[in-house]
Amino acid sequence: MSKIPPNATIALIGKYHAQGIIEPLREIAAALSTRGHTVLIDNGTAQHTPLPGYAACAIEEIGARAQLAVVVGGDGTMLGIARQLAAYGVPLIGINQGRLGFMTDIPLSKAVEVLNDMLDGHFESVQRTLLEAKVQRGDEIIFEALALNDVVVNRGASGGMIEMSITVNHQHMATQRADGLIVATPTGSTAYALSAGGPILHPQLAGILMVPIAPHALTNRPIALPDYSTIEIELRGERTVSAHFDMQTLTEVQGGDRIRIQRSQHRTQLLHPVGYNYFAMLREKLHWNTSPLLDAEK
Amino acid sequence: MSKIPPNATIALIGKYHAQGIIEPLREIAAALSTRGHTVLIDNGTAQHTPLPGYAACAIEEIGARAQLAVVVGGDGTMLGIARQLAAYGVPLIGINQGRLGFMTDIPLSKAVEVLNDMLDGHFESVQRTLLEAKVQRGDEIIFEALALNDVVVNRGASGGMIEMSITVNHQHMATQRADGLIVATPTGSTAYALSAGGPILHPQLAGILMVPIAPHALTNRPIALPDYSTIEIELRGERTVSAHFDMQTLTEVQGGDRIRIQRSQHRTQLLHPVGYNYFAMLREKLHWNTSPLLDAEK
Amino acid sequence: MSKIPPNATIALIGKYHAQGIIEPLREIAAALSTRGHTVLIDNGTAQHTPLPGYAACAIEEIGARAQLAVVVGGDGTMLGIARQLAAYGVPLIGINQGRLGFMTDIPLSKAVEVLNDMLDGHFESVQRTLLEAKVQRGDEIIFEALALNDVVVNRGASGGMIEMSITVNHQHMATQRADGLIVATPTGSTAYALSAGGPILHPQLAGILMVPIAPHALTNRPIALPDYSTIEIELRGERTVSAHFDMQTLTEVQGGDRIRIQRSQHRTQLLHPVGYNYFAMLREKLHWNTSPLLDAEK
Amino acid sequence: MSKIPPNATIALIGKYHAQGIIEPLREIAAALSTRGHTVLIDNGTAQHTPLPGYAACAIEEIGARAQLAVVVGGDGTMLGIARQLAAYGVPLIGINQGRLGFMTDIPLSKAVEVLNDMLDGHFESVQRTLLEAKVQRGDEIIFEALALNDVVVNRGASGGMIEMSITVNHQHMATQRADGLIVATPTGSTAYALSAGGPILHPQLAGILMVPIAPHALTNRPIALPDYSTIEIELRGERTVSAHFDMQTLTEVQGGDRIRIQRSQHRTQLLHPVGYNYFAMLREKLHWNTSPLLDAEK
Repeated sequence: MSKIPPNATIALIGKYHAQGIIEPLREIAAALSTRGHTVLIDNGTAQHTPLPGYAACAIEEIGARAQLAVVVGGDGTMLGIARQLAAYGVPLIGINQGRLGFMTDIPLSKAVEVLNDMLDGHFESVQRTLLEAKVQRGDEIIFEALALNDVVVNRGASGGMIEMSITVNHQHMATQRADGLIVATPTGSTAYALSAGGPILHPQLAGILMVPIAPHALTNRPIALPDYSTIEIELRGERTVSAHFDMQTLTEVQGGDRIRIQRSQHRTQLLHPVGYNYFAMLREKLHWNTSPLLDAEK
Repeated sequence: MSKIPPNATIALIGKYHAQGIIEPLREIAAALSTRGHTVLIDNGTAQHTPLPGYAACAIEEIGARAQLAVVVGGDGTMLGIARQLAAYGVPLIGINQGRLGFMTDIPLSKAVEVLNDMLDGHFESVQRTLLEAKVQRGDEIIFEALALNDVVVNRGASGGMIEMSITVNHQHMATQRADGLIVATPTGSTAYALSAGGPILHPQLAGILMVPIAPHALTNRPIALPDYSTIEIELRGERTVSAHFDMQTLTEVQGGDRIRIQRSQHRTQLLHPVGYNYFAMLREKLHWNTSPLLDAEK
Repeated sequence: MSKIPPNATIALIGKYHAQGIIEPLREIAAALSTRGHTVLIDNGTAQHTPLPGYAACAIEEIGARAQLAVVVGGDGTMLGIARQLAAYGVPLIGINQGRLGFMTDIPLSKAVEVLNDMLDGHFESVQRTLLEAKVQRGDEIIFEALALNDVVVNRGASGGMIEMSITVNHQHMATQRADGLIVATPTGSTAYALSAGGPILHPQLAGILMVPIAPHALTNRPIALPDYSTIEIELRGERTVSAHFDMQTLTEVQGGDRIRIQRSQHRTQLLHPVGYNYFAMLREKLHWNTSPLLDAEK
Repeated sequence: MSKIPPNATIALIGKYHAQGIIEPLREIAAALSTRGHTVLIDNGTAQHTPLPGYAACAIEEIGARAQLAVVVGGDGTMLGIARQLAAYGVPLIGINQGRLGFMTDIPLSKAVEVLNDMLDGHFESVQRTLLEAKVQRGDEIIFEALALNDVVVNRGASGGMIEMSITVNHQHMATQRADGLIVATPTGSTAYALSAGGPILHPQLAGILMVPIAPHALTNRPIALPDYSTIEIELRGERTVSAHFDMQTLTEVQGGDRIRIQRSQHRTQLLHPVGYNYFAMLREKLHWNTSPLLDAEK
């Protein structure tokens, strides 16, 4: 995307239960309106945060009508909206109320100023891959979901490992016994997968990451596959476990069920202010500049 | 223990559902009997594996009467018996039907021969620490259990991390957000804790190991504490999660519940054939002698 | 590559100091010759393993004349030959005298049979990325090398960490204090990088892997970048350290020197027998099918 | 140690090349003198930081005469002094000029106030284990050193792994191929060993930690042994590598040399202000309270 049209319709979406968000949302809406944009408020936001004078509508209508969506909230809010708007190709800008997030990188205090600059054409655009997951029982698809971060198969409340047979592009890859398995996008590589010992995948790397959680075979390591791979996870045994999609929706999976995961045909387009630097964000979030060790040299 | 008395009462305990175990059990019982020992069969074994001529009795009676227990099965069988007999101080010998285990280190094929040698006084004795865990809700202890491997607090089926406040000897240690937390004995360090990234603790090290599972703070590392430490884990939030003891018994834990873990006053005494080498077992089980990497030098 | 021409010139290259390699090399040469191929022996092999009747020539001449090279040796031999032939685009087949390697996947005992089948057209072809590294001191390039596995910057004999400033595509990525840094291809991800805690990158993933060795900041994690990235490592401080290329060639690097690493324009083409399965090799080499832990369930 | 005598002789030792340290050292010396203590300045400090009116003397004389040593500097300074004074049993207090260290936990800005309080008897005392290492070539001991953090065997400038045969209490433990091996005290577990993937050992745990650096066998894990263990590392092959002691002294080790490591008979006694909390320091230094991940729940 090289430019946002001057008369573009822009959606404004806020985290529903966040405190103190009304005034900033009002200011942003006014600023967008002043620039000549039609402003849509999503129904959920409008219900919790009345913003009179702007049309409230369902997320599907936003998808159909908006040429840009401004999301005010944390990374979790952004993840949810990105999934819902993925099929519509609406680019997203993320504004964070608190500590900056991985995908919500504009501080609320500078929102109007930065948005004006971006709407003037000064922005950078990054595509983020989504995963599409289908749970198949026998011949039937019993569940379908998109994930921007990850698809996670996880043992539930009962003790003991789960056993999975993993196939990649119809080739048997491994039979794994583990607490679970994370299949992540590059976006998701800095989420749950990182805490389970996975590497970071740069957002522009065309890869899908698999990270076993506490695998029984100690040499089972995270593996990154080309993003055109089809991954199939078949659950073994008689247990019922959970499959999570971005840790927000979940479904139960039984022994014999297969979860097929592929890159979605949809992508999320994130717009960042000019000068956005993915590594700067990693340094900041991961405290790369600290040296916590007992240092024999100092 | 320096010697097993010639007329000692010896319990024989088998894995209940194991196939092909009757004949070996009969041979072992006969050999013990021939040496002048009174042989007790535990009720569970006797029910599945009739061994006429030997008294069948409850595990409590075995605890009260036996001066030695011979366990035929895998490490899981041994764990269960060791916990049940811990309070009685009965020493244990482990015989494994299949691939040798960490605690069941005598192959079934050589059982009679090795047992005769050990009963002649040729054995080494190793003490293994157990943990004692109490789950407290308000002022009430709602659950108590022993563990020879580990006490594990683990998120159940729902998504998202659990939050725990951890106290050691009444000092606040950390507030952790993670999938869970493993508190392990040295014995348990080569079990689940190892797959979650923990170190190995030598059985003679007087320590307790804490291993976070997929911790949110990437610098949360496994930590080994002196074995006289009292660890208290308070569950935060409103979720109900599971606490597991040796992955065999479990109970539900709610927000506000506290799990207090200490070294048990009881210990399990394992008897090994002379020449037992803990490291040899690690090398064998963990494939330390293999070099799986793409080797630029060869 | 879809077919090897019936009258193709084929080079035969053996590990120089390997014992018992003469007879197999002779058989392979004879089999190739019988099929109508012109067989070239590389000078090094010819010197240690006289094979009368075949032309011996320098590796450069092999590059210029051969349409296929058969390498008999371990992965290390293959790495060296692959680097030397990279600029010539000669496809390679790897035959291993001992335990199968990651890139030398045909057992010597079946070499003639498998080669005949592959020369009949039954093979699969995989491209492997190489890295090109340049060491710059001031304005001058003082060293250049190709690497099929990895470029490694490593502290030498002196104690203490080294400090590196890392730039990716002219963006500052991080200042790292560590024992060293590994920049690896997907091929190299199963070599040294794996032992330093890196993930596996599938050979078809278009990525470059960076793995810090014992980094001071505990949150410095392995990161995979798109393979069109230019990585620049500037050594800080006044120390002299080593830079290694496939652990085979090395050069000294001083404070202020910059090492620039990019995907090479050359690629190595490996030919495998039909049915080659990268994952089968991982399972075999990494013992994925073993469960070494103390298992509470057995 | 329950009390510091009112007329105790106290040594004052500063980091030699630190800037702006004269005035604080003078104030501390004056405060100690005012309390009636005889103040000794170590020769090195006296040379760089003239403090007229106080006797300057060698570290050996400090060992012989002082009943307490106050060290102003970082953890590295403390490590060096602790090793030199270990044989004399002089307790140590650590004052840090900059960011607080693991062993230098009193800020320079509060030094006089805190010292007065501690000299009034309000302190806690912690014993820290030291290691004693001997390098043996043939029948001869060619090098001996103490280490408060760690003994490290490390490959030098040349490429490739080193091979070590490791023995614990005369039992063969493992033959390791790795970049190196760290043998650490609990104190050293938060130093280099932590960056190489080791666990934290609590200072009161009677253990010695072994952490392999980038081991070839992926299942080679950190292992904690009882602190009465004797570890012997025999270097294999024909290479010359380095052995480091607290990363400060080093010696060359050849193939066939054996490094024997044991707990030293000496211990370092660190005095801390009342209320010292080891875990509080870990939380602070390791940023345990941060949650750096892309959080799907926020």
